[in-house]
Amino acid sequence: MIHTRPIGSLPTPCLLLDLNRLESNVRRMRAHLAQFAVSFRPHLKTAKSLDVARRVMDAAHGPAMVSTLREAEYYASQGVLDLVYGVGIAPGKLDRVGEIRARHGADLVVILDSTEQAESVASWSKANGDPLPTLIEIDCDGHRSGVQPWNAEQLTAIGRAVTEGGARLRGILTHAGGSYGLRHAEGLTNAAAAERLAAVQAADALRAAGLPCPVVSIGSTPTASFVRNLMGITEVRAGVFMFGDLVQSGIGTCQVDEIAVSVLATVIGHQRAKGWIIIDAGWMALSPDRGASGQALDQGYGLVCDSACLPYPDLIVLETNQEHGIVGIRPGGGAPPPDLPVGSLVRILPNHACSTCAQHDRYRVISADAVVAEWPRANGW
Amino acid sequence: MIHTRPIGSLPTPCLLLDLNRLESNVRRMRAHLAQFAVSFRPHLKTAKSLDVARRVMDAAHGPAMVSTLREAEYYASQGVLDLVYGVGIAPGKLDRVGEIRARHGADLVVILDSTEQAESVASWSKANGDPLPTLIEIDCDGHRSGVQPWNAEQLTAIGRAVTEGGARLRGILTHAGGSYGLRHAEGLTNAAAAERLAAVQAADALRAAGLPCPVVSIGSTPTASFVRNLMGITEVRAGVFMFGDLVQSGIGTCQVDEIAVSVLATVIGHQRAKGWIIIDAGWMALSPDRGASGQALDQGYGLVCDSACLPYPDLIVLETNQEHGIVGIRPGGGAPPPDLPVGSLVRILPNHACSTCAQHDRYRVISADAVVAEWPRANGW
Repeated sequence: MIHTRPIGSLPTPCLLLDLNRLESNVRRMRAHLAQFAVSFRPHLKTAKSLDVARRVMDAAHGPAMVSTLREAEYYASQGVLDLVYGVGIAPGKLDRVGEIRARHGADLVVILDSTEQAESVASWSKANGDPLPTLIEIDCDGHRSGVQPWNAEQLTAIGRAVTEGGARLRGILTHAGGSYGLRHAEGLTNAAAAERLAAVQAADALRAAGLPCPVVSIGSTPTASFVRNLMGITEVRAGVFMFGDLVQSGIGTCQVDEIAVSVLATVIGHQRAKGWIIIDAGWMALSPDRGASGQALDQGYGLVCDSACLPYPDLIVLETNQEHGIVGIRPGGGAPPPDLPVGSLVRILPNHACSTCAQHDRYRVISADAVVAEWPRANGW
Repeated sequence: MIHTRPIGSLPTPCLLLDLNRLESNVRRMRAHLAQFAVSFRPHLKTAKSLDVARRVMDAAHGPAMVSTLREAEYYASQGVLDLVYGVGIAPGKLDRVGEIRARHGADLVVILDSTEQAESVASWSKANGDPLPTLIEIDCDGHRSGVQPWNAEQLTAIGRAVTEGGARLRGILTHAGGSYGLRHAEGLTNAAAAERLAAVQAADALRAAGLPCPVVSIGSTPTASFVRNLMGITEVRAGVFMFGDLVQSGIGTCQVDEIAVSVLATVIGHQRAKGWIIIDAGWMALSPDRGASGQALDQGYGLVCDSACLPYPDLIVLETNQEHGIVGIRPGGGAPPPDLPVGSLVRILPNHACSTCAQHDRYRVISADAVVAEWPRANGW
């Protein structure tokens, strides 16, 4: 904790995290999931922060999901021991997985979707006397990795390679990443139903082959937000919901005034003939992510707000260079740009919280627009 | 320096820097500029590394250009004292500029393009007894900031506000950022000529008003590479040329086999029915930058090479998630994807070196495909 100080005392650009919005976003998701008999495993890849994690997890030891072994080390070293590493395991990473498990006593689970991986995990387990807990990744919507849920033969072959080779089969996991392309409640509810069905089908196939499948894990912020039935599911995962962003607001999982992260920037110039305001936040501070560009409302590189986080009508970051943002009225927008002299502070709501936060090494945590803390992030691999 | 070791011993994803390519890129630019009577001020924002800077600068003290005050502090603290901070100055940053100047004895120059900024710089200079050296930014191609070069009245007003208020006028600076949108040698040579003319016109206007203008500074990697006449120019700047990238190769300032930075990644899975190879480098390691998407050859999120950096025909990163890359043949490409089992190493050439390097905290420096050093980066603000 640092002493409370005004936002205006911060160097720009920097990353702000609104504590009240964070806590409210977490309460909303937990209240929604409380109607189902499932456990909740937050994905900590957006936050990469123990301080955030503690406000999101059920308990100090987890459960939680991570996207890098650097995150796994960071969280495990601080007592978060119930962890899934959510990227398909490569043989060259097994020693480091084993080290994190041994050094911190972490229950660090790996995921895989091929017999080659299963064989390497099993043979590492046998050679090191540490039977690695393993989840088989299922492809529920064709967006990335995973075994097809109807492919009982492949699922069984992988499950056998895991269990018979010396590792442990913990169950299956799937992620409806395709739901990020949806916009309407009905489509999202359907995507959530399809995600559940794929998971249950895969789990049934393993069990029918006599293989264990205690964990049936699904989730993404959009499907977790809109799911209505979790029969057969033991665990739900979600990550970006805790911060929200413009993409999520375009999908419909949050409102613009619920977005908990923003980039604080300073006005450094104008091209008045063009209606441009130049700020000291370019793609380095905002990220080059143009995630909302395919949505109904293209938000440029971010939505521009005043220092209290109230959006200016139709004011967006039109273009970025490394350390410059060009702010102006969105194409088709009617209002003239506000008069913001050099030195004015603005806050930019991000397209994609994961990528914007990744450009920063810490959060300036604010409450009632005063800075109340500084929380580090565990970037890198 | 660390002991020489094979690339295969590195954790993935990580950022590789090919020392021989770096040195050759620097030699090429220096040889080209040697025909002109100008000084060379490399922009260090791409590298953010003293180890790289030392291989690019004329001398240990500079000259050099930076994009953040964090870079200015980092370089100045290690003896690089001839520095321009190339982002329009905000009043709230002047104390930090003064601190870097005083603590390290750095000749740190600020840039500005309005009388408001000039007045705040002058009044800070007077109040602190440190007359800040100042360059007026000129807009040579409408792409971002700067005074119009024909606007003698505004130039003179800014120049007077600087000199009469108590700061020092060092001259003018312009950057042909619009040249990044060009493709052909003729257009680039014209852009370089226009950049020179704008700079000379602005310098003449200041001198005609009796104001000093010892420095006339221009530059961008494309215009510096294609310029044929530098009459009236005292200084050329360029940055990304030292690494090169796919965007620069699309513009024509480098060849693909001259690109010095790449991301080392591991194959973690397949979707064989779709021709997809999944790697452990997503937008977090590659950057969400799609800079080549508007060029003749869309390179996706990067061009995929073998571990010796030889490109596979038409193999690109088609799509990314945070820690996943989906590799496949580019639309319209003929060759089938190579057979790369789980665990295979690949190297990804980036669209935009500045943004890809920004995702990493260090370079793994390689020579003849062995790791010979690890160089830190000075990220952040």
